[in-house]
Amino acid sequence: MIGRLNHVAIAVSNMEDGLKVYRDALGGQASEKIPQPEHGVSTVFIELPNTKVELLEPLGENSPIASFLERNAAGGIHHLCYEVSDIRAARDKLIGEGYRILGDGEPKIGAHGKPVLFLHPKDFLGTLTELEEI
Amino acid sequence: MIGRLNHVAIAVSNMEDGLKVYRDALGGQASEKIPQPEHGVSTVFIELPNTKVELLEPLGENSPIASFLERNAAGGIHHLCYEVSDIRAARDKLIGEGYRILGDGEPKIGAHGKPVLFLHPKDFLGTLTELEEI
Repeated sequence: MIGRLNHVAIAVSNMEDGLKVYRDALGGQASEKIPQPEHGVSTVFIELPNTKVELLEPLGENSPIASFLERNAAGGIHHLCYEVSDIRAARDKLIGEGYRILGDGEPKIGAHGKPVLFLHPKDFLGTLTELEEI
Repeated sequence: MIGRLNHVAIAVSNMEDGLKVYRDALGGQASEKIPQPEHGVSTVFIELPNTKVELLEPLGENSPIASFLERNAAGGIHHLCYEVSDIRAARDKLIGEGYRILGDGEPKIGAHGKPVLFLHPKDFLGTLTELEEI
């Protein structure tokens, strides 16, 4: 079912900290910082030869990564995103096997303009797992 | 400096739990389980089109992932591994900029038979980060 690892998302309190590590120290190629007010984050992508690291910085009130950063002040890996060809078929298979999907189960348009769902971390090895239809 | 994301490592207390999620539910292609007593883990690789998920299960006394699993009973993302072409040059650059390397700073032969180093998670966005020379 899952295809490529689309990205690994790392949450940071301040994007400059993320850029210092991933652009300046590790030498990754960083995109522009893009505010995504409808998702409550700003994003920078570090382009690797085979996948991407998505740096997430909180934006506005009630950012969905605020509580994660309260628990992880230095930042941390926030989620993994895998590509699927049919997100509703993937969802229905997982629900049928007793797995939990976050929210109402309807795919939303994610930060890349594609339909996404988040799977419950308690059911997926303590890992917040995003599926993105490509 | 960093090249491909070689793998994302997810620690689990019991490999069967990892296989249930990544092979049976998410449909990934799983390798055989390989005991690696010199590393204190058993590994299964989930082969994706562009990278791998490395499932880690503790093996023997004093497994290096035992304390992580005490803090994360459901499992969790343990580390990210990036490929570099010259691991000693990468290490020297990072140390020169004040970053910390775990252990004595000498590359060890990792679970894939290649020289590896682990970077201090507190200096790398709360993320245990492995460099592997390819």
